[in-house]
Amino acid sequence: MFDPKPYIRTVPDWPEAGVQFRDITTLFSNNQAFRQLIDAFVQRYINTEIDCVIGLDARGFILGAPIAYELNKAFIPVRKKGKLPFETIEEAYNLEYGQAEIQIHSDALKPGDKVLVIDDLIATGGTLNASCKLVKRLGAEVVECAAIVDLPDLGGSQSLKDQGFDVFSLCSYSGL
Amino acid sequence: MFDPKPYIRTVPDWPEAGVQFRDITTLFSNNQAFRQLIDAFVQRYINTEIDCVIGLDARGFILGAPIAYELNKAFIPVRKKGKLPFETIEEAYNLEYGQAEIQIHSDALKPGDKVLVIDDLIATGGTLNASCKLVKRLGAEVVECAAIVDLPDLGGSQSLKDQGFDVFSLCSYSGL
Repeated sequence: MFDPKPYIRTVPDWPEAGVQFRDITTLFSNNQAFRQLIDAFVQRYINTEIDCVIGLDARGFILGAPIAYELNKAFIPVRKKGKLPFETIEEAYNLEYGQAEIQIHSDALKPGDKVLVIDDLIATGGTLNASCKLVKRLGAEVVECAAIVDLPDLGGSQSLKDQGFDVFSLCSYSGL
Repeated sequence: MFDPKPYIRTVPDWPEAGVQFRDITTLFSNNQAFRQLIDAFVQRYINTEIDCVIGLDARGFILGAPIAYELNKAFIPVRKKGKLPFETIEEAYNLEYGQAEIQIHSDALKPGDKVLVIDDLIATGGTLNASCKLVKRLGAEVVECAAIVDLPDLGGSQSLKDQGFDVFSLCSYSGL
């Protein structure tokens, strides 16, 4: 399986002191690595029954859109509040201080749709968890939550699994 | 050429009274239309010398990433200020009230790189123009600015052309 780690840049002390930020822009800016990255997800899901791919605002769009394209599936954005123009439903998730909301168009999914949910990285899992709730509220089914990077020490992937969601990542980093 | 208009939803009075918002999420959520949409851009550029595709935060990511994937090129995000973790350069652009800034990683482009710049829609052209300035400041060359929708009455596409940039869109809407 494709290992993205050699192409991921670690930026120390961003966005604050003590954090080792995993910068995936260097993975996207290498054309061969970007191709292999998308193909790794495509190969995983090519024989899976999927109706559409959800990408999370905004880095999840960079992954989710080409995966949807290559699988010949619809692409559905989940967006930060106030960005979608039609009727929406929303879910709150916790930030370090306070809360924020994400939204999906109410007519973006049909009951029974099988949905692949894509983001770049799983940290606390707040936005992925809120996205899965939106999918279920529209009567659709989460096939899997998938990301490039898992940070298991932050508990997000375990939290998603505890709620019955399948979780996949191409690599993980322990420690913060 | 693929006509996206039958798949674009017009939402009246959003984000404010009097605006006819062109909602492209319905274009992405139709899997055949999404495929045809991306392929329309791919066919346009398949024989063009391009080193990388820039997508503008955030809807430009949904277009730019699959176009880069299918053309086997690097994908480079231009982002709203504060989202990129490494060294950046930035340009301001005008909003209805005040200004905002967009950024690109300083090492994302090399001098001489040929760059395709992608966004969903050309209105006043502020963010596209600022993005082209960032490309030029890094010594790279804008091959073309491309979008799904042009709103020519807002002057953005003409403004870009006046500065010597080639501009392409799949469709246009006159009136606001």
